Amino acid sequence: MTMAQRDTYTPETLLAVAVEVFIERGYDGTSMEHLSRAAGISKSSIYHHVRGKEELLRRAVGRALDGLFGILEEPGAEGGRAVERLEYVTRRTAEVLMAELPYVTLLLRVRGNTQTERWAMERRREFDHRVTDLLKAAAAEGDLRADVDLRLATRLLFGMINSIVEWYRPKDDGGGLERDQVADAVVRLAFDGLRRA
Amino acid sequence: MTMAQRDTYTPETLLAVAVEVFIERGYDGTSMEHLSRAAGISKSSIYHHVRGKEELLRRAVGRALDGLFGILEEPGAEGGRAVERLEYVTRRTAEVLMAELPYVTLLLRVRGNTQTERWAMERRREFDHRVTDLLKAAAAEGDLRADVDLRLATRLLFGMINSIVEWYRPKDDGGGLERDQVADAVVRLAFDGLRRA
Repeated sequence: MTMAQRDTYTPETLLAVAVEVFIERGYDGTSMEHLSRAAGISKSSIYHHVRGKEELLRRAVGRALDGLFGILEEPGAEGGRAVERLEYVTRRTAEVLMAELPYVTLLLRVRGNTQTERWAMERRREFDHRVTDLLKAAAAEGDLRADVDLRLATRLLFGMINSIVEWYRPKDDGGGLERDQVADAVVRLAFDGLRRA
Repeated sequence: MTMAQRDTYTPETLLAVAVEVFIERGYDGTSMEHLSRAAGISKSSIYHHVRGKEELLRRAVGRALDGLFGILEEPGAEGGRAVERLEYVTRRTAEVLMAELPYVTLLLRVRGNTQTERWAMERRREFDHRVTDLLKAAAAEGDLRADVDLRLATRLLFGMINSIVEWYRPKDDGGGLERDQVADAVVRLAFDGLRRA
């Protein structure tokens, strides 16, 4: 039996707790009991906020996806040469990943066992396709190297960006790198590579 | 009760089965019972080959680590300018990852709960440090761009290479990309970037 706290959660703070538990135990391995223990409130208090764990997952990955798709609506993603838009989207994707670290981490780990997970994977693929389209446009404008397959390039680009979740910790947790420094490095390596020009 | 087959396993074929189970269920989530069911032989037959699941893990990640450290002993990693050795090691790391896909996948997923897991993580870090040393040497020879932190560059480089395990499937499984094509793309993007020179 858990000593239940008074329930002072808002939907956002409860979501933050749930996301940490989902990342640690996996979504499948998380029960309402685990969430109740981590939050320090009863299961019925959690049900007062949400219908169940799938709703928490949907909100959490929804927050990551809103952040990512929001990038594509920003002015920097909409005007100018495709290679510049691609560079903008690359930088902003790295920034959103760091700003919404637990939510994007969860999104990247989702595997498709429930409807919500399948929806999240579908939306993630859709985002990847939007970026592949940008690569195609930049290649058509003659600004990208012609000797790398564009779908392969998209995968490697996202591989580099998404790997940030494995080691990045916010600077205010002590000793981390600044977000700008990481985003700059991603853009430099992705577009111009390690080699001195 | 499982219908036990006659035990025709060699250490190598048993290892291949175990690695698939470790990847699917996680090492912590795998019991000898799971291994027995997947292999279709009794637990005592498995104990005839190995002392337990930790020995299987040690052999599996050992195979991945031998592949990776072996690269550093190859002539291409030992002579010439550091940037050329770095390029060689980058290409070969991608190749070994694809050639030893399940073993490297397992190595990358290991988290440190047992002595074997901690040893594997330590060896993996050691490999990363050897590559960082190569980046430092290449930077000292003036061949790498000076505006990216070298530890950060190493992380992003491995992020790109290691992400291959998420989507690469051998060509003979149908429809996949050739290993050469993937390794070439990794080297081009890592060293010269997406942008047309």
